[in-house]
Amino acid sequence: MSQRAERLQEEEKRDLLDPLMAEGWSVMDTRDAIHKKFKFKDFKKAFKFMQGVAVHADRLDHHPEWTNVYNKVDITLTTHDCDGLSKRDIELARHIEEEAKNVSQQ
Amino acid sequence: MSQRAERLQEEEKRDLLDPLMAEGWSVMDTRDAIHKKFKFKDFKKAFKFMQGVAVHADRLDHHPEWTNVYNKVDITLTTHDCDGLSKRDIELARHIEEEAKNVSQQ
Repeated sequence: MSQRAERLQEEEKRDLLDPLMAEGWSVMDTRDAIHKKFKFKDFKKAFKFMQGVAVHADRLDHHPEWTNVYNKVDITLTTHDCDGLSKRDIELARHIEEEAKNVSQQ
Repeated sequence: MSQRAERLQEEEKRDLLDPLMAEGWSVMDTRDAIHKKFKFKDFKKAFKFMQGVAVHADRLDHHPEWTNVYNKVDITLTTHDCDGLSKRDIELARHIEEEAKNVSQQ
């Protein structure tokens, strides 16, 4: 994305984040960022999920901060450009949810 | 791997770790584990590296603890089975070095 990201306003943040919070995302205490822990059957599934997310990250030119330990993947999303949450995080989080569901159902 | 991993003895640890230390790996202060930070040109390269490592991890049935933020990948290796470093960590670290070199040279 070439356009500079704009930090979400409080009201818009609530509207956009509510559906993600319902899926288990949470807003971090220490940063203007959202976070979720995913757990899969094994490493193979966890990494398959990461591969799916990486495709979206590449396409959106927006990247997660993520940690993988065996079947677990912890993801934090924020936008360095605007030093906080932007619509890019919401969009990436939605794709992440789809990927997690796809991989878990396979 | 079906065989239970054995924790490396001090002398054998020195011999096996020396070549890895020369490549920039370090032994952690807080855990019997080794650690290295890798940096690539961009996310695409970093993730390509991770994909290469994942193939080895799967084959060896031994997995890294790793964090990726854009072009950076921080890796910690230890063996939960024996609560410390084993030959599996050394073997995986060697493959990780090869993958990093391959991806950086491409």
